[in-house]
Amino acid sequence: MSTLLEDCKTILETAIARVQPDAAVRRALQAFDLGHGRCVLLSVGKAAWEMARAAWEALPGRIDCGAVITKHGYAKGPIGPLEIYEAGHPVPDADTFAATARALEMTAGLRAEDCVLFLLSGGGSALFESPLLPAQELQGITQQLLKSGANIVEMNTVRKRLSAVKGGRFAAHCAPARVLSVVLSDILGDPLDMIASGPACADPSTCAQALQVAETYGLHLSDTAQKLLRTETPKMLHNAETQITGSVRELCRAACDACEALGYKPVLLTDSLCCEAREAGSFLGSVARTHAETGVPLAFVAGGETVVHVMGTGLGGRNQELALAAAVPLAGLANAAVFSAGSDGTDGPTDAAGGFADGETADRLSACGFLIPAVLRENDAYHALAACGGLLKTGPTGTNVNDVAVALVRAK
Amino acid sequence: MSTLLEDCKTILETAIARVQPDAAVRRALQAFDLGHGRCVLLSVGKAAWEMARAAWEALPGRIDCGAVITKHGYAKGPIGPLEIYEAGHPVPDADTFAATARALEMTAGLRAEDCVLFLLSGGGSALFESPLLPAQELQGITQQLLKSGANIVEMNTVRKRLSAVKGGRFAAHCAPARVLSVVLSDILGDPLDMIASGPACADPSTCAQALQVAETYGLHLSDTAQKLLRTETPKMLHNAETQITGSVRELCRAACDACEALGYKPVLLTDSLCCEAREAGSFLGSVARTHAETGVPLAFVAGGETVVHVMGTGLGGRNQELALAAAVPLAGLANAAVFSAGSDGTDGPTDAAGGFADGETADRLSACGFLIPAVLRENDAYHALAACGGLLKTGPTGTNVNDVAVALVRAK
Repeated sequence: MSTLLEDCKTILETAIARVQPDAAVRRALQAFDLGHGRCVLLSVGKAAWEMARAAWEALPGRIDCGAVITKHGYAKGPIGPLEIYEAGHPVPDADTFAATARALEMTAGLRAEDCVLFLLSGGGSALFESPLLPAQELQGITQQLLKSGANIVEMNTVRKRLSAVKGGRFAAHCAPARVLSVVLSDILGDPLDMIASGPACADPSTCAQALQVAETYGLHLSDTAQKLLRTETPKMLHNAETQITGSVRELCRAACDACEALGYKPVLLTDSLCCEAREAGSFLGSVARTHAETGVPLAFVAGGETVVHVMGTGLGGRNQELALAAAVPLAGLANAAVFSAGSDGTDGPTDAAGGFADGETADRLSACGFLIPAVLRENDAYHALAACGGLLKTGPTGTNVNDVAVALVRAK
Repeated sequence: MSTLLEDCKTILETAIARVQPDAAVRRALQAFDLGHGRCVLLSVGKAAWEMARAAWEALPGRIDCGAVITKHGYAKGPIGPLEIYEAGHPVPDADTFAATARALEMTAGLRAEDCVLFLLSGGGSALFESPLLPAQELQGITQQLLKSGANIVEMNTVRKRLSAVKGGRFAAHCAPARVLSVVLSDILGDPLDMIASGPACADPSTCAQALQVAETYGLHLSDTAQKLLRTETPKMLHNAETQITGSVRELCRAACDACEALGYKPVLLTDSLCCEAREAGSFLGSVARTHAETGVPLAFVAGGETVVHVMGTGLGGRNQELALAAAVPLAGLANAAVFSAGSDGTDGPTDAAGGFADGETADRLSACGFLIPAVLRENDAYHALAACGGLLKTGPTGTNVNDVAVALVRAK
């Protein structure tokens, strides 16, 4: 029979494999009917190259042409006939505008039977932009908004109107061709219209709101800019379909499935965990403790991104602190464990992806001279877990969809 | 249709009613076969009077005689022919020893067909004691142990051997009559032999361990005391049966049942929650947020006792902080809520039992000028929740079995 630690490693590996950009893109593509017209691929974002390659390989002979726009240094070679561009991130540069112009050219003049396969990952807002104002003026307005204290929703309400591609305008540009979007989400619970400012998403914000923001924060705007704020963005897009993939939600679902395959009954708790790491660990440890008595195999799964308020000078990460704190309520239990790991394979400034604790962890630590409260005070979970065999290491995984933590209870 | 707030109040009231000492005692008594011999009742602890009255009323004509030993000021009048005693707590006094002596008299010379109904609640360790040494010598040893830094298990290992009733010796005294114990548990996860030092519970500790404690901490002991440490406590008790009732576990089960009766599918998370109150609230709020989308009616139940590290000068309690913190992830949801309350009806130094938050709480607070992070920094949850209708008030409930927190999700 496998050990709890082996089960944890299996669950983690299986879940991470399923949120790899290529696996995530392949899965999302199955939801689309590409039709029989031309198919233009446009992949934008920090994972644009990986997403494009996955689609190219998943749809042999189906993609006619296309472009990849990723961050400087992120392209990894040619992909069939696709045009590969690198551009500025997080600040758009001349390369951004040139590559976006080329993408608009390739997607112009399409017919209703054609489609645009639009692959979007993090960083898309800076990498895909075609300003309706001189770049310098746009930058000036952005600076004013940043200084004013406007929030991100207010900023986007204004900026969508100053762009030829944001706020659903890219999809409008492609019409009557259909725009089939695959969004690789690393953004916790963000609405679709906020991811890359929603190039293929109907815009819920209005001109009235944009003008209100300009008034509230006393923005200085040229006549052209003022006119643009009065120009409405698309409110309905009949040619756009979207699949979100590779999100922390999928990471959690994949973890649940992996638990089930090992004989645990999975219980999804949340995919938006955001509390203090060590307190989440204590909570999950208490959950495991309560159910350990019954000996029914159970797996409680929580995804998201916990926080750590660093007060000490030790080495560690949020996932390691979560696991270490769970060791307290787990102490003495023979059939329960808690692990937590970052899906990108790194946790804090360490070479570990996360940590693992079971009923023996507290005793082992104490035998090595580690007291859990003192270790947490020093934010030194790495050295403590290293001493008791509680570090989980995966190496870089090629994806980044937040963290997953699991409390496992097995039969006694 | 009832509102989420109404559902929360119903769940809380139903759960608390089920852990009232009288309801808890009645339920526990059903598990016992009292036989046809004499039945002597002995009720010890801070809830001894309430437990004795409940048993007296539940078993009309069945109890032959008995004694109640409770804290000074806690007796509320006569109960049939039962002898009512008040004694010292937390430090045993002459009244303790006199009442215990009388109880030992009443339970002496019983036959195998007889039984002792032994009702035990918090405070029993001080209220039920018959020292095998002069009281002053016992007190001196206790003082030495307290100063030495010995932990509670080590202290009890020694003290059980200096008592005629602890460490299972009371049950041995009653033999061959059966001792049917009902333990009203307010002690989170405590082992049975630790509650009131286990008068009717086989003692897992040994003479060797007791002597080890004496040596480790360099206790000064008379010859008599040394001899007592070498006298073994009962390791097997064939005449003792125990029912634990009114615990936080029952509070959680009752909350689960109440949720189910209202149409929510209950999921018990834990009955030993002990993390920081506000972080537990954030966690439960995130759980509600994730499931709110599906619109499947669910109730996640967590019992225990969270902690608050008071840094501010405001008014509040751990349950109120938990609910307030949950308001952040709940914000904007139309079909989810989180509440938390103390089963004794008090939360911190306030007149509220706990707090409630739903998707409107954050907006309402903001409209009244309250910012949740600032309120939490000031530990001022009471005033914030008062302003938005989020205080739960029950008045004193007559029981105390920790807290219960519930995250509710209803159909959209």
